[in-house]
Amino acid sequence: MEAIRWDGRQLYLLDQRLLPDQQEWLTIPHWHAAAKAISNMVVRGAPAIAITAAYGLALAVQAGDNRTEAAQGLARSRPTAVNLQWVLDRLQSVPDASVAREAERIHAEDRAICEQLGRHGAPLLDGGVLTICNTGSLATGGHGTALGMVRSAIEQGRSVHVYALETRPYLQGARLTATECAVDHIPYTLLTDGMAGALLASGRVGSVVVGCDRVAKNGDTANKIGTYSLAVLAAHHAVPFYVAMPTSTLDRTCIDGTDIPIEERPASEVRTIGDTWIAPREANVWNPAFDVTPAELIDGWVTEHGVWKPPFPPPVDDLSRTR
Amino acid sequence: MEAIRWDGRQLYLLDQRLLPDQQEWLTIPHWHAAAKAISNMVVRGAPAIAITAAYGLALAVQAGDNRTEAAQGLARSRPTAVNLQWVLDRLQSVPDASVAREAERIHAEDRAICEQLGRHGAPLLDGGVLTICNTGSLATGGHGTALGMVRSAIEQGRSVHVYALETRPYLQGARLTATECAVDHIPYTLLTDGMAGALLASGRVGSVVVGCDRVAKNGDTANKIGTYSLAVLAAHHAVPFYVAMPTSTLDRTCIDGTDIPIEERPASEVRTIGDTWIAPREANVWNPAFDVTPAELIDGWVTEHGVWKPPFPPPVDDLSRTR
Repeated sequence: MEAIRWDGRQLYLLDQRLLPDQQEWLTIPHWHAAAKAISNMVVRGAPAIAITAAYGLALAVQAGDNRTEAAQGLARSRPTAVNLQWVLDRLQSVPDASVAREAERIHAEDRAICEQLGRHGAPLLDGGVLTICNTGSLATGGHGTALGMVRSAIEQGRSVHVYALETRPYLQGARLTATECAVDHIPYTLLTDGMAGALLASGRVGSVVVGCDRVAKNGDTANKIGTYSLAVLAAHHAVPFYVAMPTSTLDRTCIDGTDIPIEERPASEVRTIGDTWIAPREANVWNPAFDVTPAELIDGWVTEHGVWKPPFPPPVDDLSRTR
Repeated sequence: MEAIRWDGRQLYLLDQRLLPDQQEWLTIPHWHAAAKAISNMVVRGAPAIAITAAYGLALAVQAGDNRTEAAQGLARSRPTAVNLQWVLDRLQSVPDASVAREAERIHAEDRAICEQLGRHGAPLLDGGVLTICNTGSLATGGHGTALGMVRSAIEQGRSVHVYALETRPYLQGARLTATECAVDHIPYTLLTDGMAGALLASGRVGSVVVGCDRVAKNGDTANKIGTYSLAVLAAHHAVPFYVAMPTSTLDRTCIDGTDIPIEERPASEVRTIGDTWIAPREANVWNPAFDVTPAELIDGWVTEHGVWKPPFPPPVDDLSRTR
């Protein structure tokens, strides 16, 4: 499955809010629409929103809009994922005429990075792989990060079975990961978030693998809400817990997790599902979109360069070309 | 709020599947309908389904049905909650003419037991109280078990704030607990199940309190799926974890948690919410309704006789009259 298409002039996004029941592609004519698609979660997943922002800037340049204004508007569309800022920084010095081509390059690179990451991470997986949210081709330029490790493991002939937490409130696990697994013939079982402990206690999970939205210099990792619970549960059951981290998600300017801004999203996401009200209309709600898992609960950060542990290697020129 | 009404001839159940949006009472004319209401979750909560089964047997006697057949049918309606079996055992030796009156007595006693339990448990609560599922008046003859402790704490002038996990897949926290809290002016915040870890890490929770469906002799406790995850998370954060346990939920014939049967419910509960499909139509699903929390993760079992720890006091004649 893919989430983002670009025909050289216009951007098309698969409306992930309508999955699994409808597959509808939205035409994104303008950078404003790209920013809105990110904040509305038409597209989500740290790498995918970065690619969308890159094309958004290309749209701004094509339209002759104020480029700084566009970059600022796109950067503000969601606060936690750092890849978004990383992409806009990378595009800052690119001349107008080359922005679209650079965005295409970022898109293609992301897929290649996922495939490298997957190859490095695949040997860590065997048997049951518990995961949260969606970290597959829909969240990236293709292949996926945590789910990319699973794809690579299958390519390497390993026997793996995905246990996908449904991931309330936005249900990325149920709507997106289960759909990707079904379409791509990856063996999987869907379960609710509260079942993670019981599943780990049953002995069916060999490893827990998650994506990330921003990793601090010390390894503290912001990812989809529920990841921290999962890390504590994995540690309690002595099951290894890995973070799939394209190095563009590492934010060396954050010393630790307390520096990472956590987005709170609207109460309506918790009060309703589709058109169904599942709580009182005025219910008081807490809805943080992410949580921070302390580095000490994480057994490895799987990157396109190999499996890392803090202190992370410094950026080198050779690496920075693909970062 | 109340869930169960009896007018001396007929049984009426609030259809809890339709909450919070609709308040509809179903007339239950026959024990078959009572058993179906239990298995379909029109009524749920270990004490409430036991009361419903008692009235179901009264309906069978009134209609001149085979009493043994009715008792067996009611006992099979849900497998995990032991109160159901306890009530049917208690009614076995009651003469036909007295079954309805004994069912009314069981109903009234349950409310009184909840109030006693609440008074014993209230001093354990201060500040944030994290809970799962619904353990309020809708789950019992009135007042509630874990939520009854909260009610009693408020009556005693303690400052408490309920953090209600929405409790997928059946959403008893969102649909029922949030509704009860809103109606009864109990301060509360609703959150998704995956947010429990982040909430505990934030320092806002003083205690975790849950209900139970069956407690083994050694203290291992079966309760709503997600309870075990919560117990592990509470232990990790050194937050005390209490089980509100009417002594009718203690099953001394279960030596430990491995003796407790765990009901698996239909995949449709995970694949859909209301009329909305949230996963592929053929999604592979794991849907256990309960999990078992080992006794060592539990700091106290709050009963109508006080706060207990294993080995639990033996049943005494004086107590057994109200058990």
